[in-house]
Amino acid sequence: MIDIAPVLYKDEKLLLLDQTLLPNEERYLEISTKEEIWEAIKSLRVRGAPAIGVAAAYGLYVSVRDVETKMFDVFKDEFCAAKELIGGARPTAVNLSWALERMENKLMELQERHIYDIKEQLLAEAEKIRIEDEDACRAMGEHGLSLLAPGMGVLTHCNAGTIATSKYGTCLAPIYLGHERGYNFRVFADETRPLLQGARLTAWELFKAGVDVTLICDSMASIVMKNGWVDAVAVGCDRMAANGDGANKIGTSGVAVLAKEYGIPFYMFAPTSTIDLATPSGREIEIEQRDGGEIYRMWYAKDMAPEGVKTYNPAFDVTDAKYITAVVTEKGVVRPPYEENLKKVFEQG
Amino acid sequence: MIDIAPVLYKDEKLLLLDQTLLPNEERYLEISTKEEIWEAIKSLRVRGAPAIGVAAAYGLYVSVRDVETKMFDVFKDEFCAAKELIGGARPTAVNLSWALERMENKLMELQERHIYDIKEQLLAEAEKIRIEDEDACRAMGEHGLSLLAPGMGVLTHCNAGTIATSKYGTCLAPIYLGHERGYNFRVFADETRPLLQGARLTAWELFKAGVDVTLICDSMASIVMKNGWVDAVAVGCDRMAANGDGANKIGTSGVAVLAKEYGIPFYMFAPTSTIDLATPSGREIEIEQRDGGEIYRMWYAKDMAPEGVKTYNPAFDVTDAKYITAVVTEKGVVRPPYEENLKKVFEQG
Repeated sequence: MIDIAPVLYKDEKLLLLDQTLLPNEERYLEISTKEEIWEAIKSLRVRGAPAIGVAAAYGLYVSVRDVETKMFDVFKDEFCAAKELIGGARPTAVNLSWALERMENKLMELQERHIYDIKEQLLAEAEKIRIEDEDACRAMGEHGLSLLAPGMGVLTHCNAGTIATSKYGTCLAPIYLGHERGYNFRVFADETRPLLQGARLTAWELFKAGVDVTLICDSMASIVMKNGWVDAVAVGCDRMAANGDGANKIGTSGVAVLAKEYGIPFYMFAPTSTIDLATPSGREIEIEQRDGGEIYRMWYAKDMAPEGVKTYNPAFDVTDAKYITAVVTEKGVVRPPYEENLKKVFEQG
Repeated sequence: MIDIAPVLYKDEKLLLLDQTLLPNEERYLEISTKEEIWEAIKSLRVRGAPAIGVAAAYGLYVSVRDVETKMFDVFKDEFCAAKELIGGARPTAVNLSWALERMENKLMELQERHIYDIKEQLLAEAEKIRIEDEDACRAMGEHGLSLLAPGMGVLTHCNAGTIATSKYGTCLAPIYLGHERGYNFRVFADETRPLLQGARLTAWELFKAGVDVTLICDSMASIVMKNGWVDAVAVGCDRMAANGDGANKIGTSGVAVLAKEYGIPFYMFAPTSTIDLATPSGREIEIEQRDGGEIYRMWYAKDMAPEGVKTYNPAFDVTDAKYITAVVTEKGVVRPPYEENLKKVFEQG
């Protein structure tokens, strides 16, 4: 596994790996205001539901650590203003509000204490959230590994890896654990348009870690499954409703339908911080709508994945006749059975 | 409909619209050698199964029109060398070999004739192929329209439009005919990675023609269908086997699986020049494998679609619980029924 954390608190500095620069540059940003943490989450410099939660907790702390007051109410007003701003950065991943609520609960527990103590305890709470996330990821790795066998092909969508969490990742945790134990997985990484998290982040971190990874376009998942190369699908989750409906990166639902059709198990990795029992079903999950320029203008002019990563790039695929409702030719509409009816088209004058 | 032909023969010049420059520049290339037509097909300057067939027929003609000989065998050797080179440009679309075979059959019919006559007849045959394609597209438009109703949402993948054919397109022909007749279709165009034919070509030509088109990433087809916005899927075809299996742009099979799952009819548009009764099933169709750089390096740094085209850009989607085989949490693997079993995870100590 690569030794890179997306969120670091070191020497009293909050540092975030700027994931928009990957795979071409590994640069950390220092964050010291609520506006900076808001911008970093909004612009996906830090992303991945668990990492967003961790970054938000630390970000909330650094936003208020320099507030000079002895009055709890004054401190609390600043805290709440920061919490509200940061909480509005992105709507879908529940970890964001979950982590901020947890920080606020801690604050309210401590209201009789000295502001200096409160600040110390808020930092300790952020660190606790980070450590719990790391532990949860390691545990998901073991549980996930129990569903997989050596040599399996595993397809993943978006990035729920090391840099989406405090460490290990959610759905990539069993891949890393298996890799250490000689499982020899073959991973297929969907590139994940429009922002290419699969190409820029998943292919990058797995390639760097020496895992056998093949980068494909999202549209190739169907044929890779049909080829028999995929034994399991493993994806992360941004919010899971009480009924098990899971919001995750756009495209995940399509991968799930394909997996069902091709008879491949589909595993969603969700730490409990991502499970939202207060949301009854997927219909109640707010889906973030983003700018159309992400689609029609390529934001990322440099390499979109580590050069040299394996790719699979078929120009075409074959759609089995059973999926084709009708074939339209210049001689008319042909319905199944095609074996018989296509011939008839040619027999016509 | 836009008044732009991908293949023009005018004033004794063969001109191809360089589709790799779209949507930013409309530039025609003059083609006068077999190497040039080979390169233009290979590099997708001209693409779309029917347009490849037409371009290859004209390309074969211009490759041999300057051969100075009175000997049929000498002429035929040059003809066959050009045919072999051009035929090897791309393997999947059967229209390429179909058009070249047709030109050779014409040549062999004429072997007693003067070389000057032969050249004239070869040009006439290429023009016949082009005109027949135009007629076939118009007919497919009418047949296709019989499957659609005003106001429908139609999803398409890749480009099987005006510039993939001599005129009208295959699967876009009913869209254009319907547009003229006030059908008010809402078209969803998959961008079609890696080479973005949906964004650069389909969104471009429909937008230019005033058709209501929304550009989406390939990974968004699932959610657009789930939203109830798609009443029919219409796609082109590069080769259809005798049993109805149809090769088309990579990603088509996935769209077909989704359409089946969401109960949406899936129509494949295939002129008879694309139906290959000599190929029994999809398994026997050779699938072109292309360079991985198309995936990991963005070849197209400028706008990838006409600026201002409508887009739909959700950052997430919801995967219904019924598709999720198991949820992996840090507390263990959760199986359905989720309504019950997710709660239990939180009830554990």
